[in-house]
Amino acid sequence: MARIVMKFGGTSVADLDRIRNAAQRIRAEAEAGHEVAVVVSAMAGVTNSMVSLVSDAAVLADLREYDVVVSSGEQVTAGLLAIVLQDLGVSARSWLGWQIPIRCDDSHGSARIEDIAVEEMERRFGEGQVAVVAGFQGVDSQGRIATLGRGGSDTSAVALAAALAAERCDIYTDVDGVYTTDPRIVAKARKLDKITYEEMLEMASQGAKVLQTRSVEMAMKHHVRIQVRSSFEPGPGTLVVDEEEIVEQAVVSGIAYSRDEAKVTLLRVLDRPGVAAKIFGPLAEAAINVDMIVQNISAEAERTDLTFTVSKADLERAEAVLRSNQEELGFAELLADPNVVKVSVIGVGMRSHAGVAQQMFKALADRGINIQVISTSEIKVSVLIAEEYTELALRGLHTAYGLDAA
Amino acid sequence: MARIVMKFGGTSVADLDRIRNAAQRIRAEAEAGHEVAVVVSAMAGVTNSMVSLVSDAAVLADLREYDVVVSSGEQVTAGLLAIVLQDLGVSARSWLGWQIPIRCDDSHGSARIEDIAVEEMERRFGEGQVAVVAGFQGVDSQGRIATLGRGGSDTSAVALAAALAAERCDIYTDVDGVYTTDPRIVAKARKLDKITYEEMLEMASQGAKVLQTRSVEMAMKHHVRIQVRSSFEPGPGTLVVDEEEIVEQAVVSGIAYSRDEAKVTLLRVLDRPGVAAKIFGPLAEAAINVDMIVQNISAEAERTDLTFTVSKADLERAEAVLRSNQEELGFAELLADPNVVKVSVIGVGMRSHAGVAQQMFKALADRGINIQVISTSEIKVSVLIAEEYTELALRGLHTAYGLDAA
Repeated sequence: MARIVMKFGGTSVADLDRIRNAAQRIRAEAEAGHEVAVVVSAMAGVTNSMVSLVSDAAVLADLREYDVVVSSGEQVTAGLLAIVLQDLGVSARSWLGWQIPIRCDDSHGSARIEDIAVEEMERRFGEGQVAVVAGFQGVDSQGRIATLGRGGSDTSAVALAAALAAERCDIYTDVDGVYTTDPRIVAKARKLDKITYEEMLEMASQGAKVLQTRSVEMAMKHHVRIQVRSSFEPGPGTLVVDEEEIVEQAVVSGIAYSRDEAKVTLLRVLDRPGVAAKIFGPLAEAAINVDMIVQNISAEAERTDLTFTVSKADLERAEAVLRSNQEELGFAELLADPNVVKVSVIGVGMRSHAGVAQQMFKALADRGINIQVISTSEIKVSVLIAEEYTELALRGLHTAYGLDAA
Repeated sequence: MARIVMKFGGTSVADLDRIRNAAQRIRAEAEAGHEVAVVVSAMAGVTNSMVSLVSDAAVLADLREYDVVVSSGEQVTAGLLAIVLQDLGVSARSWLGWQIPIRCDDSHGSARIEDIAVEEMERRFGEGQVAVVAGFQGVDSQGRIATLGRGGSDTSAVALAAALAAERCDIYTDVDGVYTTDPRIVAKARKLDKITYEEMLEMASQGAKVLQTRSVEMAMKHHVRIQVRSSFEPGPGTLVVDEEEIVEQAVVSGIAYSRDEAKVTLLRVLDRPGVAAKIFGPLAEAAINVDMIVQNISAEAERTDLTFTVSKADLERAEAVLRSNQEELGFAELLADPNVVKVSVIGVGMRSHAGVAQQMFKALADRGINIQVISTSEIKVSVLIAEEYTELALRGLHTAYGLDAA
């Protein structure tokens, strides 16, 4: 007998048929004698509709009221799933964030969980009752509903698994695991049996949208073993675990990419101390995140060329901010290029292996792909290339690092 | 400065434009210096969708979970209205049933309000804050959401007005008041300035679907002055008040009708003690409400003919129940007739005036309308007639009792 948390995302509870399918999965675990807590998202599309309603209601909505509106979707799913489980003969009840309670800080719209009171839930486990918990929501210090930010149900599930000291937190979704790279692009992509938290974090933030980043950070901190698995296919998925749990660690575990990049180049910026702060300060004030940065020597004396990336959605605003400060910043020209992609090779094995970056640069060069910007971390090498080479680069790198399926 | 409760029904908050319209109304009251609590229904159609989801999920759903699902609609409206009010510069916050709390008994799906804690709300009135309360919902003794039954937001509003000792409870709806009869049928119908609780109860239960019956009973008990008024038209509506508040009381205040009637006649029932109990017992067990009953002498000795009405929706089930007990009940034949309408003349003035019923029978007879069943109460006379005479009867009675607009 184990204690497990099962989380079902929006597509896995999109309609009553899918909720019934999820209920079958839950019943199987309960009948196997496990203590089961289930965390549910809103039915697919519901949260988006609620967010639209709020943004149509007012440009700047009180986030406490935003949370009242958008948290309703998970409430509906929790009630429906409890009903369907009972209909299948499984003892179950729904729990809303304030009922448990899941205590959060007061940063509405993106609150952080501080504490989960699980005593009553544990008592009911002893009576064989399944807990169906509305994800994405908690209650603040004033007794008002707080939500955890988009994708927050993953975080709810991991936090609940930590509070319950659950053996495993199964994230049921519409893919059957984490792949070495996007299988829609690389046919030889392989499902990973295991991946470390650090790698998963890089995979997630590099555009592989399987798990919410914060949920992985929390799992890492509390050593919660996550399993990413399919709601619709049987069989195990991918375990996200501590590095120690992985006996044979590949140097490179996966290759991620993000099309949500745009490149900005400022030509002939005055090369003086403080100029970078002058450029990135106004962008930060406009809440525009800058990712990769590279500074080149300009052909002209005392001038430098500066290249950086922002998300595609921010490009237009970034241009406007920079142009309105052009005189002060002293650049001669601004070049914007949205037709770029960031490709990253990821693996904790890099820590102990040299030459991983070199291998990447060679594989890309062999295919005539020009690297525009490079950035690296301890377990990751990212390059910015022209978007048209995305598929070629992914396939080439996948082969070069020996990741292809047999 | 007064303290008022304003309630907006589903059609009055059906979309953001209508929510904005409601917010304008609320702002006007707040700017006039009043202390304002607002009670909202779910946006039109939302509760029906939720009820459908639940009934598709399971034939017999746990009513505690039903309440979790169906209460979500009012939560959304409360948050949205608070956002829109703030956007108009009005200080406002939403209140869910469990936050106030509105304490209910444990009869989920049709819970009764036991207590409303208004201290914090009153404190915030002092700071000029409008309270936006989700109608239809409260919390039971176990901390679970309980709903008040369909139309329950009227009851929420009246209960809140009682707890707040509000001067008035304004029910904003899609009609501008209570009419002497249905103006879609009788062009000369007049809007009433005032009506007593008792009359309103009879009007409501006789098919004039303006206010939920329970809310009127509660208003009568706690002397809450209700005003039924339009969300879309300016001007006062109809006040529902104690009899003492109405100086000049008409003998007949209004004429109601209900098409939701079906007539059942059992021919040649054995005329023995206890036979009525034998007939109506099985119907009661099947949760079929019987309204009007009349027993005639049969042509045959020791036999009687029995006629009664049930709601149209129950007719088929009532027939089945009776036929399956035919042998024991001993009737010779069952006649079912769904083509009937119940027409009622209503007025507290009847208590002190004789001849009201006689006037009704004469007015109908003059128009060649046959009366099938009669029932009376202290302030009401109802007759069952063939449905095809509905319009003729209503117009004739409206004129006969001097109710026609000048």
